[in-house]
Amino acid sequence: MSARLQPLFDIAELCARKSLTHAILCPGSRCAPLTLAFARHPGIHTRTISDERSAGFIALGMAQHTKLPTVLVCTSGTAAYNFAPAIAEAYFSETPLLVFTADRPAEWIAQQDGQTIHQPGLYGQHVKKTFQLPQDYDHADSMWAINRIVNEAINLSLQVPQGPVHINAPFREPLYPAKDETIAYSEDVRVMEAHPAGSALTEEQKRVISTTWPAFNNVLIVSGQQHDDTNCVSSLNNFFSTHNVPIVGDIICNLHAIEKVVRHADLFLGQSSAAVKKTLQPDLLITIGQSVISKNLKLFLRDYAPKTHWHIQPAGVVADSFKSVTQVFHASPTSFFNFLSTLQFPDTFKQQKQNNYNKFWEVEERRALRTLDEFFPQKEIAELEVVNEVIKQLPPDANLHLANSMSVRYANFIGLTASQKDIHVFANRGTSGIDGCTSTAVGHALASARPNVLITGDLAFFYDRNAFWHNYPLPNLRVVLLNNHGGIIFKIIDGPGTVPEADEYFVTQQKLNAKKLCEEFGFEHLKLDNKRKVKNLLKDFFEPDGQTKVLELESDSTLNKALFDHLKQKINKSYEL
Amino acid sequence: MSARLQPLFDIAELCARKSLTHAILCPGSRCAPLTLAFARHPGIHTRTISDERSAGFIALGMAQHTKLPTVLVCTSGTAAYNFAPAIAEAYFSETPLLVFTADRPAEWIAQQDGQTIHQPGLYGQHVKKTFQLPQDYDHADSMWAINRIVNEAINLSLQVPQGPVHINAPFREPLYPAKDETIAYSEDVRVMEAHPAGSALTEEQKRVISTTWPAFNNVLIVSGQQHDDTNCVSSLNNFFSTHNVPIVGDIICNLHAIEKVVRHADLFLGQSSAAVKKTLQPDLLITIGQSVISKNLKLFLRDYAPKTHWHIQPAGVVADSFKSVTQVFHASPTSFFNFLSTLQFPDTFKQQKQNNYNKFWEVEERRALRTLDEFFPQKEIAELEVVNEVIKQLPPDANLHLANSMSVRYANFIGLTASQKDIHVFANRGTSGIDGCTSTAVGHALASARPNVLITGDLAFFYDRNAFWHNYPLPNLRVVLLNNHGGIIFKIIDGPGTVPEADEYFVTQQKLNAKKLCEEFGFEHLKLDNKRKVKNLLKDFFEPDGQTKVLELESDSTLNKALFDHLKQKINKSYEL
Repeated sequence: MSARLQPLFDIAELCARKSLTHAILCPGSRCAPLTLAFARHPGIHTRTISDERSAGFIALGMAQHTKLPTVLVCTSGTAAYNFAPAIAEAYFSETPLLVFTADRPAEWIAQQDGQTIHQPGLYGQHVKKTFQLPQDYDHADSMWAINRIVNEAINLSLQVPQGPVHINAPFREPLYPAKDETIAYSEDVRVMEAHPAGSALTEEQKRVISTTWPAFNNVLIVSGQQHDDTNCVSSLNNFFSTHNVPIVGDIICNLHAIEKVVRHADLFLGQSSAAVKKTLQPDLLITIGQSVISKNLKLFLRDYAPKTHWHIQPAGVVADSFKSVTQVFHASPTSFFNFLSTLQFPDTFKQQKQNNYNKFWEVEERRALRTLDEFFPQKEIAELEVVNEVIKQLPPDANLHLANSMSVRYANFIGLTASQKDIHVFANRGTSGIDGCTSTAVGHALASARPNVLITGDLAFFYDRNAFWHNYPLPNLRVVLLNNHGGIIFKIIDGPGTVPEADEYFVTQQKLNAKKLCEEFGFEHLKLDNKRKVKNLLKDFFEPDGQTKVLELESDSTLNKALFDHLKQKINKSYEL
Repeated sequence: MSARLQPLFDIAELCARKSLTHAILCPGSRCAPLTLAFARHPGIHTRTISDERSAGFIALGMAQHTKLPTVLVCTSGTAAYNFAPAIAEAYFSETPLLVFTADRPAEWIAQQDGQTIHQPGLYGQHVKKTFQLPQDYDHADSMWAINRIVNEAINLSLQVPQGPVHINAPFREPLYPAKDETIAYSEDVRVMEAHPAGSALTEEQKRVISTTWPAFNNVLIVSGQQHDDTNCVSSLNNFFSTHNVPIVGDIICNLHAIEKVVRHADLFLGQSSAAVKKTLQPDLLITIGQSVISKNLKLFLRDYAPKTHWHIQPAGVVADSFKSVTQVFHASPTSFFNFLSTLQFPDTFKQQKQNNYNKFWEVEERRALRTLDEFFPQKEIAELEVVNEVIKQLPPDANLHLANSMSVRYANFIGLTASQKDIHVFANRGTSGIDGCTSTAVGHALASARPNVLITGDLAFFYDRNAFWHNYPLPNLRVVLLNNHGGIIFKIIDGPGTVPEADEYFVTQQKLNAKKLCEEFGFEHLKLDNKRKVKNLLKDFFEPDGQTKVLELESDSTLNKALFDHLKQKINKSYEL
């Protein structure tokens, strides 16, 4: 005879059959049926995280690694709202999550009976869909509905564009099985398997591409954020070798394995003259991926707009961040570039033109790279210098996590080299918040054996310190903390730096350093206060000895801003030579 | 000539004219026009809090103290979502807040341009209304609209039932005034003053009350959560002296100044027999206020339901937590009880009956009180004992803040005496979350000179530790930390205590104590590890010497559960005598 809560127990079985093997179970009583169902399931690795805000981002990090929805479970009430920042990030970064919020039965909402808020539809437009589970299981249809809803939710979460799906789950008491009742999972749980639509170019798409392609001379490829994808890298590599088309990609696009990729557009486009920019203007812009970091690149593409802009994206609504999209090809970038590689340039004059255009970009990239090479090392130790050293010495198979807001920009100035091809770069650029950067890295560290290196500023770091407030060891996590005791970005961007309220209301100076935090959580704290120590400290820091380590540079924002301005001047000067 | 951002600057002027004098400005660039407008306004006290989740609850605490909306400002993106837990609490606890979320112009939503989410309507049903400000100010109507919206939002926030109102505010760049531009506030800012509707009983309500009142013998008054209200206290006092009607009110109803109030219903209703309960059953139940803490009281009222249940509430939808409401009087409790006091009992037989009914409650209350008095002091030092001592020694004018989930229950077992009449009790019982209990107390400490004493468990305390992550001193804050390294409530309630997953997934053991945290923030840390030290430590603890202090008891959940069970047994035994 099956238990009253059997349809709920079988949710865990279904998740396991659909290969969802990681679940984060936040504490609470209302969620007990799901907590027990997941915790007891032998096929699912469960963990508990007490701060739901961190839990959400930890789940996000896990999903980025597994490329499958992480199961998230919380109790009723504001617990569910604490998931919201991570859910918004998952939505915009297209990361699959399966979010269960336990709830009281619908009759009890707003009846002053503790920990109830209006949970149906709580996450608004930041989930792909929101479902409501039946709260009574007497009718056979309710069993069917629970199975169907969870099947659909998982399938939808994985359908491109991927994203979070919400299931609000009202439970009646008793919430716990009887004292010696065991939980058995049904053997006949129905699995609805979804076979994804193809993302290869259609014949019609190929026809459009091959007939219009010959009209363009200055073709530019710009990649926004993408996860590591060896197929995409090799199709672009192959394409470049046949066509010499410049590919601009900042550090979060994970195309650094491509030798010829232009990595320093942000640096040189911020300093180059209108005349130089004119030579870089594309007539056809091809974009793939999500957002770009570089504001200079965005401004350049908006000011020197292409006549035609092809955006390649398998499915979904298109973001038009350069204001120039004219054709959208719903297909995978890999398929698109593989096809382009087969196209011939019959016209050598045209080919020459494209080669020249590519050379303009190569010259600029080389100029920036030369300036950078000459620029380091600096006499004084400052953040940009440390980021440079850290990136140069990253373990070859590291995940590099970049916190918002200056850390990701610093790292992008430096860039990764083609030889660092096995490094995967992650950053929460869906919403660019500072609220879960550490937790996201922690999620990776929990789900994967790779070394995880987080570069973060002090605001992001202390904001999200509950990322560490749990009982799971993080031997493969390394944090580089750039502590300038405030939000240095507000000194660097135009505007806030000039108002008298800058320090209090924008930079928001904060006094903490990581010493006590490291003591609290038993982390090794490496303090970087001497220029000569950098190399040795980094050696200790990266040593895989089972310790979580925080390498902290406490430095002054004025010094850091000066170094940053100095680099910009150097780039600027390089045009005078 | 007025500046482009003049209508935004004038928002601060309008808030000041409407007596909103406290604003929390969270850091960010998108919100710069409002940040500057508020920060520079001489009539508004502004502070910056970096973690928006804490900021929201700090604003809530301030609003509880000022009884006016606190202005909350954040930048665009997930920052806004981090306000959500506090906004939900404000909604259900009917606390006024004026929430501004800065946004990018509508055209730029979901265009991958950094820190944008879908902000309009973000808080769903957890705000009284959500407004969208115009983003261009060229047309005169937009100036009108901005003034009107802010006026309406403030008025609506203060209209009973009070609550949070959301204004989403999209801003175009440039976000900062020019370098030497000053901010001047317009002198002719329109103020729409709202004159609140009366909450006195109408003649028709009086007629209904006086004609039906004689039919009831066993009248019971139950108060849910209310803020301190001396008018309500004296009207109830007066009413009791004429009518001898039992008044049940737990610690969060702030009626402890009334000598005869029944404070320990939770204790005795949990142990008393059906026969006793039968004698306590009302034929008329009169309720005021919001939620009650006591689950035993709720169960009693549902099982021994009154024939008639009058609920007194000035306005809004009624929560029917005892499933028995039959008449709703939209009026203030003060007006209601003042009127009842004027009614005569012509029938002495009836009066005798009412007196007898009151005596039944008095007997039970006295029994519980006697048991408690005999129960303390215990040999071993445990949480309930510490809460008892702390409550007995509270400064006479303290605000007592009770965190969810065991702290508020412990304090309710003990109760406040009538002589502690100037103590005000606060607890986030709108949603009963643990996510902002400390921040709410911090909000009070910032806004008021009264001593603020928070009793909290370790989960609530560490969850919300960013309550302290700012640069404002808290000399009038005292934290009593009951650290049992987990959520002890899950050992105490039925259900989770019996499953093998209890410790990991329900109690969620956590290892921290407050030592490092106190070192980080420069707080005095008083460690309570010796029974004999209690009185002396408490003396030090309450000493108003300008220090923030944390008094910590680290203890074992088994010991605490045993003490708790022991008290229940004692109460139970008291029925055998």
